[in-house]
Amino acid sequence: MVNLQERKIFISNWFESLQANICHALEQADGGASFQEDIWQRAEGGGGKTRVIQNGNILEKGGVLFSAVFGKAPQQILSRFQLENANFFATGVSIVLHPKNPMVPIIHMNVRYFELSDGQWWLGGGIDLTPHYVFLEDAIFFHTELKKVCDKWHKEYYPKFKKWADDYFFLKHRNETRGIGGIFFDELSENETFTFQDRWGFVQDVGLAFAPIYTTLMQKNSSLPYGETEKMWQAIRRSRYVEFNLVYDIGTKFGLETGGRIESILISMPPTAQWHYNYQPAKDSPEAQTLSYLKKGIDWLAIHSPK
Amino acid sequence: MVNLQERKIFISNWFESLQANICHALEQADGGASFQEDIWQRAEGGGGKTRVIQNGNILEKGGVLFSAVFGKAPQQILSRFQLENANFFATGVSIVLHPKNPMVPIIHMNVRYFELSDGQWWLGGGIDLTPHYVFLEDAIFFHTELKKVCDKWHKEYYPKFKKWADDYFFLKHRNETRGIGGIFFDELSENETFTFQDRWGFVQDVGLAFAPIYTTLMQKNSSLPYGETEKMWQAIRRSRYVEFNLVYDIGTKFGLETGGRIESILISMPPTAQWHYNYQPAKDSPEAQTLSYLKKGIDWLAIHSPK
Repeated sequence: MVNLQERKIFISNWFESLQANICHALEQADGGASFQEDIWQRAEGGGGKTRVIQNGNILEKGGVLFSAVFGKAPQQILSRFQLENANFFATGVSIVLHPKNPMVPIIHMNVRYFELSDGQWWLGGGIDLTPHYVFLEDAIFFHTELKKVCDKWHKEYYPKFKKWADDYFFLKHRNETRGIGGIFFDELSENETFTFQDRWGFVQDVGLAFAPIYTTLMQKNSSLPYGETEKMWQAIRRSRYVEFNLVYDIGTKFGLETGGRIESILISMPPTAQWHYNYQPAKDSPEAQTLSYLKKGIDWLAIHSPK
Repeated sequence: MVNLQERKIFISNWFESLQANICHALEQADGGASFQEDIWQRAEGGGGKTRVIQNGNILEKGGVLFSAVFGKAPQQILSRFQLENANFFATGVSIVLHPKNPMVPIIHMNVRYFELSDGQWWLGGGIDLTPHYVFLEDAIFFHTELKKVCDKWHKEYYPKFKKWADDYFFLKHRNETRGIGGIFFDELSENETFTFQDRWGFVQDVGLAFAPIYTTLMQKNSSLPYGETEKMWQAIRRSRYVEFNLVYDIGTKFGLETGGRIESILISMPPTAQWHYNYQPAKDSPEAQTLSYLKKGIDWLAIHSPK
């Protein structure tokens, strides 16, 4: 029998170091600002460390959040698992970064562990990329790296979790994806095929993949030139990010409803955003081209091959 | 027996003229821009006229929307009234205006009529004001005018509908009201106390009160000076408006879920918005003073009297 008590301490400690390592790598790559830290406690049990970067050389605003919380399981969880009463434990790392230069993409990552007092547990998470301007080589790089992480653990992970991301990071009311997707997964538990170690190893690799992937994109694109047009388009794309997070994102909605620390939950909001009435980019413009890529089901790894 | 067929044509025609009259009054008061009109049809029945103003002298972005739509009642309505099947008809005018000068408040108004094929009908609506900076004299003026409209029809309207607005225009996750409230009402139907004419007369008066109230505030405050600090605070207050509309507003949520015309639904979004991490205005600053007024239950009409 697994010692859940030890396991959860081990997992939350690992997530806490992941936060520290990612912040360090991002500070190095940014070269202009460092993270400020707010430590908070949750009245009902547990707490977290919110690390925020603002007005860096490359990163305009972003957060790398760690939390480990516990207490009575909220009603939604009880209903979901048909339980009358249970305690929960949840720990994870969440990241959203909004870069200054519109040529650098917005990125999001989350890895999390959830446990109920009846012994059920599962892992979840995802990484997705939201370029203001889609560069095919970046999209291919991003999906190639994610596929490598997935393939190491199971051949079915990448196709399954890539589709899951397409379906999840989708603005139904605009019929467009938030960006070029990535991977998304939830409720990974143990079964005949997978042990805890299989699932946890995969989630650790997702967490470890984040910094190398994003610092590569920061370095590659942050010196590209841009002007007023590109800043305006960035602000419009950021407004779609706001719409996704406030209307659809499960973590955000759950946080707002259950009264989490509001400044941590909404650190995902961009520093600025604009809404123009009925804005339509000019035909064949880079903006129109980007829109044409905001669709479900694009096979980024096959996109080079002419069909 | 009332001829519902005639009544709904009459009501929607009246709302359509209200839209035209309000747009005319706003153009006169703005003096710099005029409304552009988009006429749209709804595949399932009906349509609307979306009128949008952008980059005026006073109004930076705003919409005055008319619609009259019909078809199969959506599931939410059927469940609400325990019906298996019904058709609906809905018509109304909706307004949100975002001024350029932070000293001029954001305003919202809605008046609407709803009818089901089983003969049930009701009226609803509201007006509320969201100042970026609360001026007490404006708040008193605004609530005094609304009370006049209410008192003409029933002594209980103002206290009841003022409280309803406080409760409705409330950001639970920030524990703050959207602005200084106003009035909000729904499901006004006929009963022993009120005839259709009583309810409709009241709703007409709410609609007619809008232009004189807001053009007064436009004229009074649009030449007040402001600088970078005030523009930044305006952008922060606008972000709260975004949060309210995407997270709580029933009309917006309903529109996004049922697939209405997205550019009309989201015309309520501000032209720009900013999210700063953990922004706290300086003690005793005008910004801090404004925050202190974003509370439920303030009796604006008694606020002069020292207690």
